[in-house]
Amino acid sequence: MAMGEIKELPKSWAMLGGDGPESYTQNSSYQKGVVDASMEMVDDGIMEKLDLKSLGFESTNDTFRIADFGCSVGPNTFFAVENIMKAVEHKHHAQFNNSAPLSGFQVFFNDVTTNDFNTLFKALHSNEKYFSAGVPGTFFGRLLPRSTLHFAHSSYCLHWLSKVPTEVLDSESPAWNKGSIQCDGLKKEVTKAYSAQFQSDMSTFLEARGQEIVGGGLMVIITGGLPDGVLMSQAGIGMYYDLLGSCLIDMAELGVISEEQLDSFNLPLYYSSSKEIEEIIKANGNFSIERMDSLSHNIWKTSRETKIKVSVTGGRAVFQGLLEDHFGREVAEKTFENFETKLDENFSIIDGAAHEHIDHFILLKRNVN
Amino acid sequence: MAMGEIKELPKSWAMLGGDGPESYTQNSSYQKGVVDASMEMVDDGIMEKLDLKSLGFESTNDTFRIADFGCSVGPNTFFAVENIMKAVEHKHHAQFNNSAPLSGFQVFFNDVTTNDFNTLFKALHSNEKYFSAGVPGTFFGRLLPRSTLHFAHSSYCLHWLSKVPTEVLDSESPAWNKGSIQCDGLKKEVTKAYSAQFQSDMSTFLEARGQEIVGGGLMVIITGGLPDGVLMSQAGIGMYYDLLGSCLIDMAELGVISEEQLDSFNLPLYYSSSKEIEEIIKANGNFSIERMDSLSHNIWKTSRETKIKVSVTGGRAVFQGLLEDHFGREVAEKTFENFETKLDENFSIIDGAAHEHIDHFILLKRNVN
Repeated sequence: MAMGEIKELPKSWAMLGGDGPESYTQNSSYQKGVVDASMEMVDDGIMEKLDLKSLGFESTNDTFRIADFGCSVGPNTFFAVENIMKAVEHKHHAQFNNSAPLSGFQVFFNDVTTNDFNTLFKALHSNEKYFSAGVPGTFFGRLLPRSTLHFAHSSYCLHWLSKVPTEVLDSESPAWNKGSIQCDGLKKEVTKAYSAQFQSDMSTFLEARGQEIVGGGLMVIITGGLPDGVLMSQAGIGMYYDLLGSCLIDMAELGVISEEQLDSFNLPLYYSSSKEIEEIIKANGNFSIERMDSLSHNIWKTSRETKIKVSVTGGRAVFQGLLEDHFGREVAEKTFENFETKLDENFSIIDGAAHEHIDHFILLKRNVN
Repeated sequence: MAMGEIKELPKSWAMLGGDGPESYTQNSSYQKGVVDASMEMVDDGIMEKLDLKSLGFESTNDTFRIADFGCSVGPNTFFAVENIMKAVEHKHHAQFNNSAPLSGFQVFFNDVTTNDFNTLFKALHSNEKYFSAGVPGTFFGRLLPRSTLHFAHSSYCLHWLSKVPTEVLDSESPAWNKGSIQCDGLKKEVTKAYSAQFQSDMSTFLEARGQEIVGGGLMVIITGGLPDGVLMSQAGIGMYYDLLGSCLIDMAELGVISEEQLDSFNLPLYYSSSKEIEEIIKANGNFSIERMDSLSHNIWKTSRETKIKVSVTGGRAVFQGLLEDHFGREVAEKTFENFETKLDENFSIIDGAAHEHIDHFILLKRNVN
């Protein structure tokens, strides 16, 4: 079988489970903003680019199959897939005016094996109007049978790498990223190492999805990125990660963690340029690019206090697992406490950054072989 | 959409989750015995009754899709589906000697929404050789798209009813089951009420699976039952439930629970005769009966101490949720402690019962419409 041979991702790649006050479920309003901002683009993309006739939906009563790759625990994934279904029904009506409605949908919710599927399924149940299934496993590998998906969606996941590039943690390497926990763009070799890892991961993703999606099927990818020419360290989000990094440096200076522990920690994140992504998609060759755009969203139009709160709780929901895994629970806890204080002190700098990252919206169509 | 409109089952229908010492994972050796005993029958059934040619597997590279309905948290479900896959590959080789092997398998693991899918998925990962998906929801309703399954399996679930028949808890009804927590077979009206519920549930199950399984596809059902003419109260398993019931009566006599609490509790279990099942399958009309048999298994060839231990821990893993839900955690705990003592005192009676229940093995083939 052509199964992915890729090792499962570490547990810490999963968002914080459950539905308690610190969970991803309760602390993913930024990611919700991303989904909201993309909805109209998804609608337009489906109306303009999805040809249900060529997919065979005029004559068969086949089920329309959707997958969300990197769904986490909800509720954002439900908003996204329900919006897709509505748009597909709308297009079906527009394309085959008088015929019978679509016979139904099946939705595959994918995330890493350590994702909290129990919480996802409990939330799912209450308003299920489609057949649903959870698919555990890394999306850097095959997850579904060949040519079975009509629409794939992946929101705010692909700036997560399958691993931190080994060179940036290697004191012998010219790409050693000492003093920073991220690809801040200030050292060419570090950027090159991160970019190469991103290219490798993204290609693997496109290859796996290319096998799973039927010819003519669509895929929407939403991922964090940078405007051309802007460095991570110049963007608000990069400053935010640098501030988190400074809290870890504080821990090392206080002797709570060792220098080695600090140096061996980097975030497995890469914010790509649209040019980079375009090149990877073209090199892969499975998909045509139907639209590349960036999302605008306005969730930050709120009070300073709310912004700080959301920044801290959101950061916890996403990164707590990663920090606990590397430094232990107590250090992670102290770091976030320190982070909250520092964020309060430095918020105007981050909030007033001259540059901001962008969220890429990419609509792809699977080539017909 | 033709989705099941059936209400989700209560949380307590799920087996004890996790993988700790009291979990179903660690305490389902009886159910494992059932799977073991059925393997050869499954192999024979696939070799003799599965026609891969008529299912289109000679010319297409379609994926062979299997579902296990009521999979719980493992590991029994993995043994069962892996055995099915091996037998299907064997048959494929036998049927199309020189052609390419099957292109692959997709397995849908189904159980109620409150099942511990996280534990299932973690156990699954280690040796995954097929595409897998978890499908949350009651199998007394539609779970998968029309005509998409080639093989359905359900082991040791269908003697669980979707609910306790209301009449047996109603003091005004002639079917009031006062003094017993099960369908012991001693009161005609009670048996009739339980049997009617079983008939309704089983028909619903067969109707849903009938829509999901392709014409020519197979289904194996393994379910607890009784030999013709044997009453539940005469069989070891019935005595076992009666003893559990007597522990609850003790609780009422001690004033720990009220008479009303006791009277409003009955087990949602029904052990059917092969004749009853046969009639339901024939009335449903979606399937032909290819084999009806009963399993023999030998897991009870062990020491008295082990038998008692397995009886108590196994009972806990299966029924603890049900008891906690109705009586609260503390009463459930006390009841099981009492149960252990009583089981020790009465084990020779149960173990030496003149009759034993049987486990039905039923192989069905979906009619081609």
